[in-house]
Amino acid sequence: MKPLEYFKKNRERMLEELMEFLRIPSVSAQPEHKEDMQRCAKWLSNHCKAIGLNVEIHQTKGHPIVLARTPHSASKRSYMVYGHYDVQPVEPLEGWTKTKNPFEPVVKEGNIYGRGTSDDKGQLFTHLKAIECILKTGSELPFNVVFLMEGEEEIGSGSLSQFLEEHAADLRSEAVVISDTGMPAITCPAVTYALRGVLAFEVFLTGPDRDLHSGIHGGGVQNPAHALCSMISSLHDSQGRVTVPGFYDEVEPLSPYEREQFKKLPHNDESYKESLKLKKLFGEEGYTTVERRSCRPTLEINGLTCGYQGTGSKTIVPSVASAKITCRIVPHQKADVIMDRVCKHIENICPPTVSIRIVRGHAGDPYIVEPDSPKVQAALRALGRAFEQEPTIMREGGSIPITMEFKRKLGAEALLIGLSLPDDNAHSPNEKFSLECFDNGVATSVYLWEELSPLSS
Amino acid sequence: MKPLEYFKKNRERMLEELMEFLRIPSVSAQPEHKEDMQRCAKWLSNHCKAIGLNVEIHQTKGHPIVLARTPHSASKRSYMVYGHYDVQPVEPLEGWTKTKNPFEPVVKEGNIYGRGTSDDKGQLFTHLKAIECILKTGSELPFNVVFLMEGEEEIGSGSLSQFLEEHAADLRSEAVVISDTGMPAITCPAVTYALRGVLAFEVFLTGPDRDLHSGIHGGGVQNPAHALCSMISSLHDSQGRVTVPGFYDEVEPLSPYEREQFKKLPHNDESYKESLKLKKLFGEEGYTTVERRSCRPTLEINGLTCGYQGTGSKTIVPSVASAKITCRIVPHQKADVIMDRVCKHIENICPPTVSIRIVRGHAGDPYIVEPDSPKVQAALRALGRAFEQEPTIMREGGSIPITMEFKRKLGAEALLIGLSLPDDNAHSPNEKFSLECFDNGVATSVYLWEELSPLSS
Repeated sequence: MKPLEYFKKNRERMLEELMEFLRIPSVSAQPEHKEDMQRCAKWLSNHCKAIGLNVEIHQTKGHPIVLARTPHSASKRSYMVYGHYDVQPVEPLEGWTKTKNPFEPVVKEGNIYGRGTSDDKGQLFTHLKAIECILKTGSELPFNVVFLMEGEEEIGSGSLSQFLEEHAADLRSEAVVISDTGMPAITCPAVTYALRGVLAFEVFLTGPDRDLHSGIHGGGVQNPAHALCSMISSLHDSQGRVTVPGFYDEVEPLSPYEREQFKKLPHNDESYKESLKLKKLFGEEGYTTVERRSCRPTLEINGLTCGYQGTGSKTIVPSVASAKITCRIVPHQKADVIMDRVCKHIENICPPTVSIRIVRGHAGDPYIVEPDSPKVQAALRALGRAFEQEPTIMREGGSIPITMEFKRKLGAEALLIGLSLPDDNAHSPNEKFSLECFDNGVATSVYLWEELSPLSS
Repeated sequence: MKPLEYFKKNRERMLEELMEFLRIPSVSAQPEHKEDMQRCAKWLSNHCKAIGLNVEIHQTKGHPIVLARTPHSASKRSYMVYGHYDVQPVEPLEGWTKTKNPFEPVVKEGNIYGRGTSDDKGQLFTHLKAIECILKTGSELPFNVVFLMEGEEEIGSGSLSQFLEEHAADLRSEAVVISDTGMPAITCPAVTYALRGVLAFEVFLTGPDRDLHSGIHGGGVQNPAHALCSMISSLHDSQGRVTVPGFYDEVEPLSPYEREQFKKLPHNDESYKESLKLKKLFGEEGYTTVERRSCRPTLEINGLTCGYQGTGSKTIVPSVASAKITCRIVPHQKADVIMDRVCKHIENICPPTVSIRIVRGHAGDPYIVEPDSPKVQAALRALGRAFEQEPTIMREGGSIPITMEFKRKLGAEALLIGLSLPDDNAHSPNEKFSLECFDNGVATSVYLWEELSPLSS
């Protein structure tokens, strides 16, 4: 029997198993669920054993990490599948209209509703079930596959970094397959091949050493809010480009292949604008909205604080004005280099009438797998076969810190094959997972190992 | 006996009386002192009767207003002296080092320390004692003088406006003499002849209808903080001038006489800068710091609010950015006209990518008595004789709303003869009043009626 025949025959039972998995309230953030986390890791461990995997539960300072491996073959290369069994808190409960109890999942209108359905139990389960289909039908699996399933993704993956470091030799992999992100539409399966990095800092300008009466002093001293606004204003030109010298030096132009692929993504400027109740879109000239949001670096004010912010007015020249700023950076930019350039530039443009202090915050590099790499192309073929749609590549504008961890600790690239749809309500009430995505996800995973197979030698 | 001979003979007794006045804790803001306010009005009333004045106590919704008149002569014109018997709260008590009890005044090092000494019981008392000196020596008083003494100055003079309206016919005056402001130095007596007005509004810019994930959306939408900063930045040019069209249209150039007089004021840029711990002064080109702070209109950001303001960073494109703004306006500018021009300009420069909403706040016109008017010149002569120093004219950068009330309700100009020194700690612990200012204040008041006398016909 072929793996996907086996899947067809066993699908109802497999969905029942997913329901069992979903019923465990594995909310990592809430201490009252600490026992549930252990129970969930144990359930997962037992389930993997039943599939035919060799399982270890590793206790951590937080919640357990479950490792499950296919029977080892020394002649085969290894791949990792990453997923997480912890879920977000369910509050606010009144938002759950499709199922009253977020941990009592229900199937309705072609979806399965419940906490963790999409993020990430359902997505993770497609890979487990694919391996089951392969192993139980005695089909050829060209790789050793190890499932790394953690219980702290929703609270920052605190234990993962050290775990990877300690088990680096044992966990070395060709790549890490991750289904924990989204696809743009059911008609548009996609591999995410690049992520933006981020860096954060805060600028404080001080004028007079205290708030001053604006009647007595107004006009006689520089208002630090004016200085701050002028400095911030100068950080972008009228074309929406960042004016910091060297800001774009390492940014590589998008290839014609990439830009062509992005056109397949189901984005529409008009409906995007309406969804945010915007009067007019704005962004860097020469780029589409999709490109601006995922391929181009940015400098954003995240917060402004100055003077009096209560009701009514207070006639002061404020002493201090400050801005929280983050930059999104793109592949080939280095977070620390860009941080330096931006902060130095801001110091340079500070007028002599105020004092400046910059507090640097966190910084993370961007991430890229070359989109025409054999692995990405193999993943695209698997998606195309499973969804019977032309797949595409995409970039994410945000960051996924664990991808950097896998790169740094294991030297492994990530293959991000997201199965969550934009309306899946991850982190919100009425979280759901499309059964079509579940079915096609299992198929994608089965095809993926096939498609990667020529790369195994 | 001449009035000032009488003063010399009775000075110690008069200081004792002032102490009695100061001992009444007439804190208008604190309900627990409501009875003290009545007691203070009663004390003042009795005191005025003893001087020889005809007194009325008018109850209000707040604290009483005391009217005290010199014996009426139908052939004489009338002047008003305004003062207030209420004082600021005394907290923080630990700041009072010169006298442990702010309501137990002490004389030390040529000053009298205690709450209300300078603001305004001590200053008001100089005029009462001058009238006593004139009346008790049977000297000629060329005017009817009415003392209007209120108990709500420190809480906004809430009852005064209606009172003036109801008693307008009865209170019509040539001018209102007010000693409730400052003089630049004991060596520099001055008449304040102009005050700035003020207008307040708040600007709200809205981009997306909610805070957005800066990874997912950053670059694709206009950040309202950027728009706000660019707009604010453009409101001043590099010479510190406000760029709003028509902003300066009604502003009259300073006369050579005014600019010459201001040079006498004891201001020093270097020590001003140091007193505010500023690195460098900044203001409108072509004007001195004194002129910038008192004679030129301004546009000041009083507060900025946008996005995330807590600890650390939050990677959002904020939905809303707002600024609290006030303008100080100068004589011949009209508050409502300037409000219109500024708000319309700000609406005009708002980019089409964000929505703007402006909430207008309070607005008050500026105030001026022509500095070469006979009354101002008479007041200067009185100050010069009393202090034996060359007096000058000055402008205040702030507003004194009651001056506008007297102008509006009684058609009377204010003669602002401030006797408070810059280190008198008005509103702060260790409030004091210089005995030299007290003595010279009584003399100024005696001379003032003399000097105004030629204007009585």
